[in-house]
Amino acid sequence: MSDNNMQEVRNITKKSEDFSRWYVDVIKQAKLADYAPIRGCQVIMPYGFGIWEKLQSQLDERFKATNHVNAYFPIFVPESFLTREAEHVEGFAPEVAWVTQGGNDVLEERLALRPTSEAIIGEMYSKWIQTYRDLPVLINQWANVIRWEKVTRLFLRTTEFLWQEGHTCHRTYEEAQEETLKMLDVYREFAENVMAIPVIYGQKTDSEKFAGALATYGIEALAGDGKAIQAGTSHNLGQNFAKAFNIMFLDEDQQRKYVWQTSWGVSTRLIGGIIMVHGDDNGLILPPKLAPVQVVIVPITFGKNDSGEKLLAKAREITNELKKAGVSVQIDDRDEYRPGWKFNEWELKGVPLRIEFGPKDYDKQQVVCVRRLDREKSSIPISGIVDAIKAKLDEAQKALYDKALKYREEHTRITCDYEEFKKIIEEERGFIYAPWCGDSVCEAKIKDETKAITRVIPFNGIPVESNQNCIVCKNKAKHMPVFARSY
Amino acid sequence: MSDNNMQEVRNITKKSEDFSRWYVDVIKQAKLADYAPIRGCQVIMPYGFGIWEKLQSQLDERFKATNHVNAYFPIFVPESFLTREAEHVEGFAPEVAWVTQGGNDVLEERLALRPTSEAIIGEMYSKWIQTYRDLPVLINQWANVIRWEKVTRLFLRTTEFLWQEGHTCHRTYEEAQEETLKMLDVYREFAENVMAIPVIYGQKTDSEKFAGALATYGIEALAGDGKAIQAGTSHNLGQNFAKAFNIMFLDEDQQRKYVWQTSWGVSTRLIGGIIMVHGDDNGLILPPKLAPVQVVIVPITFGKNDSGEKLLAKAREITNELKKAGVSVQIDDRDEYRPGWKFNEWELKGVPLRIEFGPKDYDKQQVVCVRRLDREKSSIPISGIVDAIKAKLDEAQKALYDKALKYREEHTRITCDYEEFKKIIEEERGFIYAPWCGDSVCEAKIKDETKAITRVIPFNGIPVESNQNCIVCKNKAKHMPVFARSY
Repeated sequence: MSDNNMQEVRNITKKSEDFSRWYVDVIKQAKLADYAPIRGCQVIMPYGFGIWEKLQSQLDERFKATNHVNAYFPIFVPESFLTREAEHVEGFAPEVAWVTQGGNDVLEERLALRPTSEAIIGEMYSKWIQTYRDLPVLINQWANVIRWEKVTRLFLRTTEFLWQEGHTCHRTYEEAQEETLKMLDVYREFAENVMAIPVIYGQKTDSEKFAGALATYGIEALAGDGKAIQAGTSHNLGQNFAKAFNIMFLDEDQQRKYVWQTSWGVSTRLIGGIIMVHGDDNGLILPPKLAPVQVVIVPITFGKNDSGEKLLAKAREITNELKKAGVSVQIDDRDEYRPGWKFNEWELKGVPLRIEFGPKDYDKQQVVCVRRLDREKSSIPISGIVDAIKAKLDEAQKALYDKALKYREEHTRITCDYEEFKKIIEEERGFIYAPWCGDSVCEAKIKDETKAITRVIPFNGIPVESNQNCIVCKNKAKHMPVFARSY
Repeated sequence: MSDNNMQEVRNITKKSEDFSRWYVDVIKQAKLADYAPIRGCQVIMPYGFGIWEKLQSQLDERFKATNHVNAYFPIFVPESFLTREAEHVEGFAPEVAWVTQGGNDVLEERLALRPTSEAIIGEMYSKWIQTYRDLPVLINQWANVIRWEKVTRLFLRTTEFLWQEGHTCHRTYEEAQEETLKMLDVYREFAENVMAIPVIYGQKTDSEKFAGALATYGIEALAGDGKAIQAGTSHNLGQNFAKAFNIMFLDEDQQRKYVWQTSWGVSTRLIGGIIMVHGDDNGLILPPKLAPVQVVIVPITFGKNDSGEKLLAKAREITNELKKAGVSVQIDDRDEYRPGWKFNEWELKGVPLRIEFGPKDYDKQQVVCVRRLDREKSSIPISGIVDAIKAKLDEAQKALYDKALKYREEHTRITCDYEEFKKIIEEERGFIYAPWCGDSVCEAKIKDETKAITRVIPFNGIPVESNQNCIVCKNKAKHMPVFARSY
């Protein structure tokens, strides 16, 4: 689309000055998304969608490797279905969009646009499942969902968003619990190894769990402004939906039993997380495993002469060589922009590696490789460039993770004192470990007074000591959750 | 899911007896799709969705090879947008589903669920496109769409379906026309080489074109009951939407001009086409390039003894070898079913090749390979099985195409006589070439009297002769369209 706004490349708000404006500037100028003319909706533009495609294919691989298959269920959920599980409807009804007319007819029963698909899928499972031999059912769906949110933010919270939702049925509680934790671990591993984002993971408290679940588990990332981002959740649904939708099977012992279910999902919100965790004042920084363009080659020529042509030809040769080796590479040989200009643009777009190739490099048969993350420069001989670039991409992936981990560690505090807790949240934000009695009254008080919310009781956290007391009521502490303000 | 209904394998209605019932029986029993509890909606079950995933990835490859990128636009189209292009709203309004409430609020303006996305995309393009340098815009979207159809049929016409819609903008009419025909050709090539379906392709008549287009082109397949299936369309939209949505660019000559647009799409209806074109009395027949399972291995053992275990181990070894070579292979080593039973089930599911592996085969170090299409049997030595199976898959793909082509040729007639035309349509159906004056009155008369509709004026058809007259009005014929009854 228009390159006019490239003139604004240097004009994105500084991250440290106004994080929210910086976030929107990056999204708009890197052309990841745009506001749509419908309340709270966005358009995911090709560059942003390119990231989603990479996310999707690498997640889908992991789902298939764990024996899941994909299917597609209708976007419509009849109102009578949505209301069958009491907690579920209470949780979702306020944010449902309703279809009331089809063609010229007013519908007899209004249809919800799925805010999530437990209800419609539950209805189908009750038809499909007959005996223990039909179990487990391990189905995932990639779909759009609609939640009529009051406050929206590009990628993080939009009226319509894209996601995947796994919905599984099992014979026993234990199998369902195993699945719930297995998928939590798939998300954790994906966040760390593909998104280069360290996460804390663990169980949500009762007040933060999914409407209708027995237990919810989640992974949580820390954004560059010290606020938490929920990046994926996995629910053990118990038999709640099985009972509401009559999903039963004949077991080997000839008894009819309700199935045990799970559901789990991540969404386009992950793209918001990547921007917020990795980005800097110059724009986006993408992990190589998710970058639509991993390497950009900028040939530096001085006018259209013989040596310029030779250099360009060589740059194209390098481009093709990298492409053949499976690297996502793009050559920027546009005449109408100067090299410095191009450097800024590709930095804004978060391309992990830039290759500069000028006349001196040509003479030495080398290129200069600049890493987006820290502008680390190195010279690479053209012979052997494929292996060198692949190694640089791996290094960039790791360095990005390390930087995010360092930031998180620097912004994680432990406190047993509520006044200190309040001070940290106000002045530094970040993750705060604090002992808690387990009572939702204390949890609500913290939320009201500090806007800090229990994120999870982490599996990879700090154990609560027997002599520690709840920071609010001073009764004996049962857990050491992580608190944070959050998106 | 439940294997109980496998007992019905042999009970699918015969194709020759009742084609419509046969079609539904195959879909239900092969577990491709199921009826959803919402009017006209279906669930695409894992096996059916597996076909869609193969379709999608191979189409997407072709779109990317022709320089298209993917994006995602909202499902909501404000009513005022939909009404901006007069023909467009007239064509789609009767089948729009309307959202009138969000959360607890009644919306000020009701929102259409996209029946197609020209309107919402047009609005965004008018913001994004500034100068000729922004052109061409070559964007595709994979999405669900909603059409409140009166009569529905699994896969072929459902209230909600999945599709892709390309939406492009160009500087000139010529470029838009080139794109329109390029994508028509992508669809043709895909139908022939991947779906193994021969198609006629060409231009739709004015009365059959897309609401809002200058010209519509399509590919048409012939189902096993002699009715036509529209399998893909490509539209030259001209400047109709550009004018309605004010999509303009500053050209090199400093003049502001409207862009020229195209749109093109195929949908989950293609799966219906595959069933109807290739299937037989035993069920589905899948082209190898779209089969979720290309080869099934059925080990034939007699009880659990040493030789049975050895045979099973060998069968698993073969399975792994084929898997490693990129073949989608599955071993059916279930104890609870007999081999003949399994043969029926995998035939029903349309798996292109079945490998039978029994004690005698084990002794000879060979397998027996049976082709789904015609049960052609051959013995293959286990050494060299990978190359042999790959060759068999290629042969099966070609043989399926050849069979479909032969059927189409046998069901294609030419006539210059209207009485004969009526007789053919009534008794044989199929494609009928007939000379036509080009007047929509004659076209409407044929449709009313025979239910035959002009499919396309084919590019790969028969030229009209200068001495031929319209079969209805007897005036000089301008075109030789293909007529057929259709889905």
